[in-house]
Amino acid sequence: MNAQSARMNELNAMHLAVAFSTGIHLPPTIDTHLEEALRHVLDHPGSLIRPRMVYLVATTYGLEEAPARDLAVALEYFHTASLIFDDLPCMDDATERRGVSCVHFEFGEAEAILAALALINRAYALSWRAISAASRECQTRAPAYIEQRLGVNGLLNGQSLDLHYAALPHNRETTERIARGKTVSLIQLTLVLPAMLGGASDRELQLLERIALYWGLAYQMTDDLKDVLGSKANAGKTVARDLLLGRPNVASAMGIPGAVERLTRFIDLGDRTLARLVQARLGLSFLEKLRSSLEEELVLITGNLCEMPLGVRP
Amino acid sequence: MNAQSARMNELNAMHLAVAFSTGIHLPPTIDTHLEEALRHVLDHPGSLIRPRMVYLVATTYGLEEAPARDLAVALEYFHTASLIFDDLPCMDDATERRGVSCVHFEFGEAEAILAALALINRAYALSWRAISAASRECQTRAPAYIEQRLGVNGLLNGQSLDLHYAALPHNRETTERIARGKTVSLIQLTLVLPAMLGGASDRELQLLERIALYWGLAYQMTDDLKDVLGSKANAGKTVARDLLLGRPNVASAMGIPGAVERLTRFIDLGDRTLARLVQARLGLSFLEKLRSSLEEELVLITGNLCEMPLGVRP
Repeated sequence: MNAQSARMNELNAMHLAVAFSTGIHLPPTIDTHLEEALRHVLDHPGSLIRPRMVYLVATTYGLEEAPARDLAVALEYFHTASLIFDDLPCMDDATERRGVSCVHFEFGEAEAILAALALINRAYALSWRAISAASRECQTRAPAYIEQRLGVNGLLNGQSLDLHYAALPHNRETTERIARGKTVSLIQLTLVLPAMLGGASDRELQLLERIALYWGLAYQMTDDLKDVLGSKANAGKTVARDLLLGRPNVASAMGIPGAVERLTRFIDLGDRTLARLVQARLGLSFLEKLRSSLEEELVLITGNLCEMPLGVRP
Repeated sequence: MNAQSARMNELNAMHLAVAFSTGIHLPPTIDTHLEEALRHVLDHPGSLIRPRMVYLVATTYGLEEAPARDLAVALEYFHTASLIFDDLPCMDDATERRGVSCVHFEFGEAEAILAALALINRAYALSWRAISAASRECQTRAPAYIEQRLGVNGLLNGQSLDLHYAALPHNRETTERIARGKTVSLIQLTLVLPAMLGGASDRELQLLERIALYWGLAYQMTDDLKDVLGSKANAGKTVARDLLLGRPNVASAMGIPGAVERLTRFIDLGDRTLARLVQARLGLSFLEKLRSSLEEELVLITGNLCEMPLGVRP
């Protein structure tokens, strides 16, 4: 990447951060509690990697800046809302998110739910605005895709399976089914939707969808492996946090060597699919950077594995 | 109304009941808990008065049956989702709704939240489908209207104010501000959105919006008065449920005589606005039936007032 395009990327990232923080107009009539809860969310945007990907894919396919940014912020609002719900006491019961207190921890559960619903409400409005600039065919296809990935076929189903993991068989199939719902669905929206709005061919959309599948599963696996290996390497304990909390973890379910092998396979499948995609659309080669970060995680994981004392090595 | 149109209305109501119950496709891969929670909601649709109004307004303005029904079910899903959130322990902490146990009471809070989100997800998809058949101008206007009425300017704000009523001045302004958010917003969507999709003039939309405002405030007032008077008339007690739970009630806030007077005024304003609307669009005269039910409530309320022993009469 040359200096000019690096500078452009930096500028775009700044624009996106501003768009995220100012994307919901808070009217003077708004209840102060709702306003404070929303400000707390909007002032802590996280890494914004997803919306940057949405923006880059969208502009690669020729979308104008405004709809590209609308879509990027919309998908990040959907994602953020899902995290707020996830963190509630009746779900994961978390206290911290993006380096600060969870919304419900600071403002109460009811206000957290209302803030998450405000994000969803705005996310649909922004998506709608982006989609209405696309082709007529896309105006039927894109909303259906959003519905499928976020609804009972996608994110919500993954979330429900996750909640009831205790009663499901603790094996690879179950953990991957949950990961497809919770992790893959949102990555598919991130990669496929902007390309769809930009008029990508069916073949390109299929390749993007498969890349999202491989990478989504791979990301979930690195997370699971880090959960198991991190604690082993650091404290010599075999009990990891996921196991302790009865949460799905593919490395616990199928064993570490099998999980590492499967992770390597997903990275490899992702590589091959990405190579075909870049052949069709050279402008998407920036996706290789995302892929490299997966590789780095793998090196770290296998490194961790080798550094362990033989006694606790799996 | 003649026998044929009565039969048509009956048929339409049945179609709507079926559309409500079958409006979300539950795929074979769905988690059984989420499926059961959703079935519980879809099998208990309530009176369906709102979607019937949406359908009648839409077809009066010439919308085809399919988008009229899509919109009707969509708005009822939004409404139902708001009730599921409302009933959660962190909000109103209710146990019963539409004659059966609340979703969270039967399936847990997390599953109730996921079911409500599934309704919202589907509601947006159905709205989108109905809107995409409308004019280009409407495709910008209608989503913005939905966003405004459901979001931080409308329903969510009313909900948040309601939660923090204890800390607000207990007066007419506050209770009406809450009613505008919680009650009026959804009635405005019910009356205005189908007319908008059918190409109603700006003046007609304004009249419909004002009718929804008057009727929404009037409905909330009859509810509040029944809460205060019902218990007084039945048990001779002055403490009503709203007061007991610290909930907003305009009759407690401004006194019963003032509330009855204000309610009468809203019905009168609604009447005058409706007369002008029906003059412009004769086909909307069915709305007079809704207005009559308000009048009946008023008669019941003033009747209650007269039957009370003088000692407890306000």
